[in-house]
Amino acid sequence: MTDKDRTHEWPDIAGRIQDKVHYLPIRVYYEDTDFSSAVYHANYLKFCERGRSDCLRILNIHHHELRDGVHWQETAGYMGFVVRHMECDFLGPAQIDDLLSVETRFAEARGARLLLDQKVLRDDAVLFQAIVTVAIVTADGKPVRLPKQLLSKLEEMI
Amino acid sequence: MTDKDRTHEWPDIAGRIQDKVHYLPIRVYYEDTDFSSAVYHANYLKFCERGRSDCLRILNIHHHELRDGVHWQETAGYMGFVVRHMECDFLGPAQIDDLLSVETRFAEARGARLLLDQKVLRDDAVLFQAIVTVAIVTADGKPVRLPKQLLSKLEEMI
Amino acid sequence: MTDKDRTHEWPDIAGRIQDKVHYLPIRVYYEDTDFSSAVYHANYLKFCERGRSDCLRILNIHHHELRDGVHWQETAGYMGFVVRHMECDFLGPAQIDDLLSVETRFAEARGARLLLDQKVLRDDAVLFQAIVTVAIVTADGKPVRLPKQLLSKLEEMI
Amino acid sequence: MTDKDRTHEWPDIAGRIQDKVHYLPIRVYYEDTDFSSAVYHANYLKFCERGRSDCLRILNIHHHELRDGVHWQETAGYMGFVVRHMECDFLGPAQIDDLLSVETRFAEARGARLLLDQKVLRDDAVLFQAIVTVAIVTADGKPVRLPKQLLSKLEEMI
Repeated sequence: MTDKDRTHEWPDIAGRIQDKVHYLPIRVYYEDTDFSSAVYHANYLKFCERGRSDCLRILNIHHHELRDGVHWQETAGYMGFVVRHMECDFLGPAQIDDLLSVETRFAEARGARLLLDQKVLRDDAVLFQAIVTVAIVTADGKPVRLPKQLLSKLEEMI
Repeated sequence: MTDKDRTHEWPDIAGRIQDKVHYLPIRVYYEDTDFSSAVYHANYLKFCERGRSDCLRILNIHHHELRDGVHWQETAGYMGFVVRHMECDFLGPAQIDDLLSVETRFAEARGARLLLDQKVLRDDAVLFQAIVTVAIVTADGKPVRLPKQLLSKLEEMI
Repeated sequence: MTDKDRTHEWPDIAGRIQDKVHYLPIRVYYEDTDFSSAVYHANYLKFCERGRSDCLRILNIHHHELRDGVHWQETAGYMGFVVRHMECDFLGPAQIDDLLSVETRFAEARGARLLLDQKVLRDDAVLFQAIVTVAIVTADGKPVRLPKQLLSKLEEMI
Repeated sequence: MTDKDRTHEWPDIAGRIQDKVHYLPIRVYYEDTDFSSAVYHANYLKFCERGRSDCLRILNIHHHELRDGVHWQETAGYMGFVVRHMECDFLGPAQIDDLLSVETRFAEARGARLLLDQKVLRDDAVLFQAIVTVAIVTADGKPVRLPKQLLSKLEEMI
């Protein structure tokens, strides 16, 4: 048993997918806040990246496997995701101890690009939202078409 | 219902206390790693801080209540925790996608100080350990004796 | 002499303003990179925030004075900047040891909002660019019109 | 001319070495603070790492060259620094806009280990100090003896 298999001990550690939406709970810790007492603006991008990573994890797509070429042998060299574009709205402040939820929706997957719609909420209030364009690249930064295996795994989200 | 009450939807979101040890699972995301491919050394301190915060949370001690003086009226002004001393051993590298566990033990609580023993593990391998001294201070940084209410809540951990 | 006056010992510590453009050099350290070996995407937002803060600093606008109401007595309570909107293009990867430059241009200042155009470059290559909308708010998050003193200081940048 | 050579435009961008002490100025930005209004404790470790990196930079030792094996051909594979042990004292809070100074002293260099003494000050007040043990490792994490070229460069600091 490796650490990557121990998720059964923490059933919801990667959040949940329901009706093509991925939900990830995020607790606000000291590290996330700044002296204004609210969450530092750039940290919402971290929260969204966690949401994307855990959504992919549930779909059985893992960063370390992409990097190591495991199961993704259509492309040579490192293959990983990079963010190309983000349009971000900062709508309200989150505070220490808040329990937030990151919602991730895949809007489109074609060519070398994924388009996602992500929101960070506290209860029903949307505090942050972003339209995110993600590409997949080789070790030397060259964009590659989304591998078929990856596309087929993403299909259930679109 | 406020966001602070929604933890029932994510039962283990603050980890678990078993036999006077608090366990918090931590996933390693992009943000935690550096170009050496392992987790950046200072981030283990963040993981430990999350462990301390969530252990206190389960004991019903909340940072925002300390700050706002709710239920802790022995002391005037902001009251919060500050780290005074840490002795840290970095024993092995954690990698992207790893599921780590932060173990938090309270070794001592007296005067204005708490002494904690914290470890970050992957499976049975200890990757980081620290002896942490924490104080409680007012808004102007003056250390105060640990409030009795707080001490009585911590008792079950020592 | 306070620490805030010691900038004469490090003449360019807040960058430089030339022809209505603020330039801030940024070194890429371990903490800025991730396991892909490049700078983690959200850190470009930190770099831009440093650029905005240092540009304002040269214009003699200081966060701690805004917070404490020093010299800005048109408004009661805490007054500080919040980011409302960002449109971000991630154009190329920065690497460990790179010396980057953040360029900050003020496009517009009216009502409660500032519009800025920011770029992060390595030599002549633009690695990141963003259109940023910033508002000024009170302690309880209410937007306020940009104080006249602040506007008059910003005029030389527009 | 590459970006790595442009430091002449920002003469003090890597700090200064005087009498075997390296001094690096650090500005406190939004990103460094937390809701207590002071600098988040783990960020002092980042400041110290910047100090170490810039001290080595002035001595002409560069992380990207270590990684790429440039000029350091005694050892195969990636070679980089890892922190093994830190004993940290958090002595006082730094605040937004503060101009801090990181002082780095090399206490010892032998075998596979460097021992450093680092302090973070505001004016004459020491806010943080640490005794840091750093090792040099290959790509697979194996410690190696400090290369002679590296030792000879470090000699002027000890």
